[in-house]
This record gives sequence, C-alpha cells and structure tokens, in this order.
Amino acid sequence: MKRYAIGVDVGATNFRLALVDSRGGLFHFRKFEVGAPRTAKGVVEQVGRAVEELKRASKGRIIGLGVGVPGIVDYERGCVLRSPHYPDWVHENLRDMFFKRTGLSTHLDNDANLIALGEMWKGAARGLRNFIMITLGTGIGCGIVLESRLWRGERGFAGEAGHMVINFDGPFCPCGGKGCWERYASQKGLKHLIEISQNDAKAEFLRENGGDAELITPEMLSNAAGRGSPFALAVWKMFGAYLGAGIASLVNILGVENVIVGGGLSKAWEFFADAALIEIKRRTYAETAERIILRRAELSDSAGILGGAKEVFSSRDRHQE
Amino acid sequence: MKRYAIGVDVGATNFRLALVDSRGGLFHFRKFEVGAPRTAKGVVEQVGRAVEELKRASKGRIIGLGVGVPGIVDYERGCVLRSPHYPDWVHENLRDMFFKRTGLSTHLDNDANLIALGEMWKGAARGLRNFIMITLGTGIGCGIVLESRLWRGERGFAGEAGHMVINFDGPFCPCGGKGCWERYASQKGLKHLIEISQNDAKAEFLRENGGDAELITPEMLSNAAGRGSPFALAVWKMFGAYLGAGIASLVNILGVENVIVGGGLSKAWEFFADAALIEIKRRTYAETAERIILRRAELSDSAGILGGAKEVFSSRDRHQE
Repeated sequence: MKRYAIGVDVGATNFRLALVDSRGGLFHFRKFEVGAPRTAKGVVEQVGRAVEELKRASKGRIIGLGVGVPGIVDYERGCVLRSPHYPDWVHENLRDMFFKRTGLSTHLDNDANLIALGEMWKGAARGLRNFIMITLGTGIGCGIVLESRLWRGERGFAGEAGHMVINFDGPFCPCGGKGCWERYASQKGLKHLIEISQNDAKAEFLRENGGDAELITPEMLSNAAGRGSPFALAVWKMFGAYLGAGIASLVNILGVENVIVGGGLSKAWEFFADAALIEIKRRTYAETAERIILRRAELSDSAGILGGAKEVFSSRDRHQE
Repeated sequence: MKRYAIGVDVGATNFRLALVDSRGGLFHFRKFEVGAPRTAKGVVEQVGRAVEELKRASKGRIIGLGVGVPGIVDYERGCVLRSPHYPDWVHENLRDMFFKRTGLSTHLDNDANLIALGEMWKGAARGLRNFIMITLGTGIGCGIVLESRLWRGERGFAGEAGHMVINFDGPFCPCGGKGCWERYASQKGLKHLIEISQNDAKAEFLRENGGDAELITPEMLSNAAGRGSPFALAVWKMFGAYLGAGIASLVNILGVENVIVGGGLSKAWEFFADAALIEIKRRTYAETAERIILRRAELSDSAGILGGAKEVFSSRDRHQE
C-alpha cells in the first residue's frame, strides 16, 4: 500500500495542503481561505476538516502530518509561541491539537523552515549542503540549512532574521526593536520605502494608482515597473538594496554561499534581484562575494507542503534506522 | 613522556605562545612584539624562533602547533586570505610555512575561533553546547559554536560578524560596505562614537585628555568613566547599545542564548555591559530575551593559546579513533 504524508502550509490569509508521496509527488492540492475564528482552535478545526477530506480521497496509508505556521515555534515542544498574523496564538501547542483533531502524528515547524526543506527536496536548493532560505511576505521568513540539516537554534528560535537591525535608529518594529530588516525588505517594508521615496515621478505614479500611498500593493508596483515607471523601478531597486544588505550580513555571519529567495514578493524578482546582488557583493569580501549564488525559489505555493511532508518521511526513516 | 601542544595567538602588535598539556595546563607563556618585516615570511620566522625556544624548554613530546591569526582564514587549505593588520598577507599558506619552519604539524585558524575554543575548554563557555564568542579589539572578531563544534562556514569565512550592517547608510568601511558593526562596537568604533557624541561634558573631557579626539584611547575613556566623567560614561553606554544591537541580530539569526564577550575592550565591561543587555532584550522577543546570558570572557591573553592547543589535541584524538 502506498504511503503518503500530508503537508500543510498555513499562511496569513489562507492555508494550502496536499497529499505527498515519498518521492515528492503531490496530489489533491487544496487551498482554503482561513475563516473565523482565527484562534488556534478555530484554525486547527478548519485545517482538520480539510485533512479529513484528503484522508478520504487517499487510496494509500497516511503516515503523518507536517504543518508549517508563521511565527516562532518551539519545535521540540510543538508549540507556537507567537505569530504575527494570529495574535490569539500565544504559547499554543498546535502539534497536540492537530494530533487530537486528525489522529495523525504531527510535525509543527516555522513556515520558512519547511519552505527551505521543500526547496531542498524538490526545488532551487536541490543538492545544496548549506543555504539560507529567505521568504519575502508580509514580513521576512528565514530558514537556515547547515550540513543538510535545518539549524533551528536552541529552542527553534533561529531564523528570526527579519528582526536583525539594518538601521540602528530606524522606524519602530512591533518586536520592540527599531530599524529591523523587515521594516524595509518585506511587504510592510515596501510601504515604508514608498513613503520615504522622494522621486520626481512619485506624484505621477500615485495619480495613476489611486492616489493613496497607503493602498499601493506590490502588484501595482510591479505592474508599474513593468510599464517602465521610474518611481516604481526606483522603489524596487531600493528594496533590492535593503534585501541585499541583510543577505550580506547573513553571509558574513554564516559563511554560507547559496541564498534562495522565495515568498510572494519574489514574483518581482526581475525588478530587485540585480540591485540585491550588487549590494551583497559590495558588503562582502571579494573572496566571499565571488562565490555567492543568489537564486529564486522554484516551488512557490507547494514548497511548504513538500517540506512538511519531507519532515514526516525523514522522521519515519530516522525512527526505523 | 608527557605530551604538549604549542598554542600561538598572533595579534596586531604582538604574539603570545605557550606550551599546553592535554589537561589545559599552560607553561612557559611568552609574549613578543611583532617586529619587521611583518610579511608572512617575517612573522613565521619570528614565531618560529619562539617555538624553537619552547621546544628546548619542554621536557615532553610536542605533538603539534595551533596558531590563531587575525583575518579571514581558509581553514581547509590553511591559508590566510586577508588580514586587516597584515596587509602583506594575501592568500598566504601560513600553515605550510609554519610546518616547514618548525617541523610541527600545524593548525591555522582565525583568532576569534581559537579564543572561542579556549573559552569553551577552560573559560566562560565551559559546558556550553551553543554560544557566540565576540572579541572586541581593533575590529570585532566572532566565533560561532553550534552543537559543541566551531561553525566555520563553507570555507572558513563564517564569523565575519563585524561586517554585518548596523546602519545602512553609515560610515564607509574598508571592507567595501557602509555602517558595518565594527564601525561602532570596536576600538575603531569607539573613535567614531567619540567623534559623533555631542554632549555638554565633551569639551571638558577633551581638555582633560590632551585635547585631540583622535588620540583618545580606550584606557583614557575607561579611566575617565571610572572618575565619573559624564561624557565618557555616555560614550561607553552608546558603545554598549551598538554592541547589544549587533548581538541581538546574531541571537535573532542563530537562536543561540549564550554570548561571551572578550578582547581588549572587554576590560571596560562595567561601563558598557548593562547598556548592551538592555539593547539585546529590547531587540529580541520576550521568549528569547529572558533566556539570553551575556557573559564576560575569563581567559584574556591565554584564550587563543589554549584554543590553538585544544585544536591540536582534538585533531589527534579524532585521528586515533
């Protein structure tokens, strides 16, 4: 009987899941909007129903559930300590809740970690022993793979790279700090960059895009850049420079040469990647700079699902050794 | 016959060495000023002579040499790529040169890495599986220990934390970047902080200390702080805040809870440590912040020597397994 794992990727606005076989084949991909209530219990119930549906659809044996969530996860305990998108989740043991709801042995991890595992299994990081995965969404996610294993830190708290400082006296961040990386190189950051950009073409750009800087979306900015708007191109370039500065810090600290960039904003890759690479090379020694490979993620929506499933299969293999 | 390793710590202005036994006992400690020529060959010759002297003084068998140098070291190849203090050293295979000069099997590593190993063996990091070692000297050195092993990165380039960005548009750094951490939290950084500090007591402080801001040493600043100079205290506090911001970034990235601070400037610990800890806690999530332990190094001058010797003994043990 064929074995499957179920991978689930819980995002800020929707969750995605699928059956995954041991070779990385993906079946019955589903995407649902997260409805109310957005409490831990509420979300586990919504995901749980979708998992039941997959169980019924499956013709094989389901050996476990791998769930990625945004936020700080205590991996050993299976506990979400905080999530930027789910303020109700404070020290919630989602792993136990998922196990109780679905009857499936569950792995719970930070979403960026599972995306890193997914890209390592089937995407842009295949064959890499060491790499840094950056996901550009509402904030910045980061998964660090050292010697082919996720480095989670002492309690799963590693990879909070979005909160490394990029400007000592920069804008306040909900984390308590100031000038954190994700105040610049994320969707939130993009808003800030639009705000601070003073460019002759700004007025024209705003006029063409509804007039309110607060309501500019990354898509609007990409579309405008595609049409050659000097303002939009300048904002993406600045975005790339800030992204690159942070990546340079990570490379200088970790001595890792491969960096994969994914997440929703990576769709604008063509508008920011060159600026990012220039900044990375400027801020690293020549010996390091010449070896750095900056690459775009390949799996988009399915990376986290594959990573979650991979966790399940790997853990099974470890236990059977 | 008793076995010894020789540990050598090459600094910017002098080098120190000693015989070390397998239990960490330190004998015949010597300190010499580095004379001309400061080329790779010149320094190897000077260290080589001192090693010869130790060999003669030793009553046991010397099994190897462990040498720490400032700069970027390609650990696998035993090669110094660059050193901030020895501009002549460009891609010099010091390991081979030491071996040829002394006949001793040689380990060559970055100085901060060996200081981390020394503190782990006999100092402030005893018993820690994971920690970050920061050395505050002319620049910032950094050794990262994960799961009881040095993390050197793919080619020994990890730990260039002094060049992580702390201010995106900050002052230029010889590395090519701008606003690097060591432009603030090092001896070079202290000069910069004195320069930018605008404090009512600055004029008085300068008057009492020779009048020239360029010539203020860390010792002068510590002495003044000890006498209660508001200017000196404010500069050390700012130094601590910048130090703490960078450490917070490292903690956010690596998820490591123990940080050891050594190097010459750590003598001023009492004047900057509180400010550093406040800044670290401000810039990390509560769950992380409450676990962070910031500690002062214990071994000062002998840490690098012990670390170099430890490398020799550990490698011997690995080979005999």
